[in-house]
Amino acid sequence: MTRIPRHIGIIPDGNRRWALSQGLNKEDGYDHGISPGMDLYRILKDLGVEELTFYGFTADNTKRPTGQRLAFSRACVKAVEALSGEDASLLVLGNTKSAMFPKELIPYTERQTFGTGGMKINFLVNYSFEWDLGFHRGTLGPRMASADVSRVDLIIRWGGRMRLSGFLPIQSVYSDIYVIRDYWPDFSPQHVHEALAWYEKQDVTLGG
Amino acid sequence: MTRIPRHIGIIPDGNRRWALSQGLNKEDGYDHGISPGMDLYRILKDLGVEELTFYGFTADNTKRPTGQRLAFSRACVKAVEALSGEDASLLVLGNTKSAMFPKELIPYTERQTFGTGGMKINFLVNYSFEWDLGFHRGTLGPRMASADVSRVDLIIRWGGRMRLSGFLPIQSVYSDIYVIRDYWPDFSPQHVHEALAWYEKQDVTLGG
Repeated sequence: MTRIPRHIGIIPDGNRRWALSQGLNKEDGYDHGISPGMDLYRILKDLGVEELTFYGFTADNTKRPTGQRLAFSRACVKAVEALSGEDASLLVLGNTKSAMFPKELIPYTERQTFGTGGMKINFLVNYSFEWDLGFHRGTLGPRMASADVSRVDLIIRWGGRMRLSGFLPIQSVYSDIYVIRDYWPDFSPQHVHEALAWYEKQDVTLGG
Repeated sequence: MTRIPRHIGIIPDGNRRWALSQGLNKEDGYDHGISPGMDLYRILKDLGVEELTFYGFTADNTKRPTGQRLAFSRACVKAVEALSGEDASLLVLGNTKSAMFPKELIPYTERQTFGTGGMKINFLVNYSFEWDLGFHRGTLGPRMASADVSRVDLIIRWGGRMRLSGFLPIQSVYSDIYVIRDYWPDFSPQHVHEALAWYEKQDVTLGG
């Protein structure tokens, strides 16, 4: 492959629909989303991707029933803890002033190097674009909370929906977006190869 | 159709590729993008769509060769003038402090009602997300220039590319995005019907 994206954003959607398709309860899907994330991290690290952002959960997501909220919060805690056992420069980014922010992740809200460092990983937890941009009724600022997250080259979304759902609006302005129909717990390395093969054919103009 | 988007964003891409495919010069494509816009406006008006935003050109686009820049500027002027002969509440939105902003469009930079009003139309001209959001090196604000533009429900992009290219980042956070492979000058009413049929099948969760 000749053109590898420097920064990839991951929207791991479809956990609840996957659970229902397996005859499980909706909240049982999230736990099946952790090992796909680790597989993905290893594939992208081997390919030399420099930065990776996972869309954990948003402030809007926390309006869901408590069982679901606890399940996706727990899954994010487990995922971040698993990543901290790898080589990574890891930051958890989201609104810590809300009770919805998992206490276990507070130590990760300053970027830390684990193992030999290497890949820069951002994990969005209790994130919202309003919080990130200080957005309120048409006013903004003064400073992006996500200032340490760089422009995203490629966004890969699982679960078939063609939308950004509030994912890093500033960093996504020029991202190419690739949608995979399968649900996130059905992750396969083939998905990544498909997405990268597609990305390679996109031109980068940045409006020029 | 049971679920019509309230606000549709239009990214009319592919004018240059269309021109080349016709054996024309790149800059000759833009003039063929005006009548599709008028056709589209009429179709959406008949369907009862309340608000429509056209992506005219961006500040980044003006870095292209002068012949192209003049051609797309002229096409935007003609399109806005044509829309002002219809029923619309029309606003041209973009950075007027730059020499790249077409002088002929200055009178349209305050929203005006034409004919019987009706559809709210926003036309982005010499727009950039940096200008809109006051974005500079991670700082923002204090006020969005596009505060009068509402959340976009559906974005339709012609020309096959799967990206937003800086189109209204705040209003697009939850937009469904539909991509049409054909180039914009090859616009057909069928494209709109396809996009709306697809939109009807998307669920609206807003993260909940």
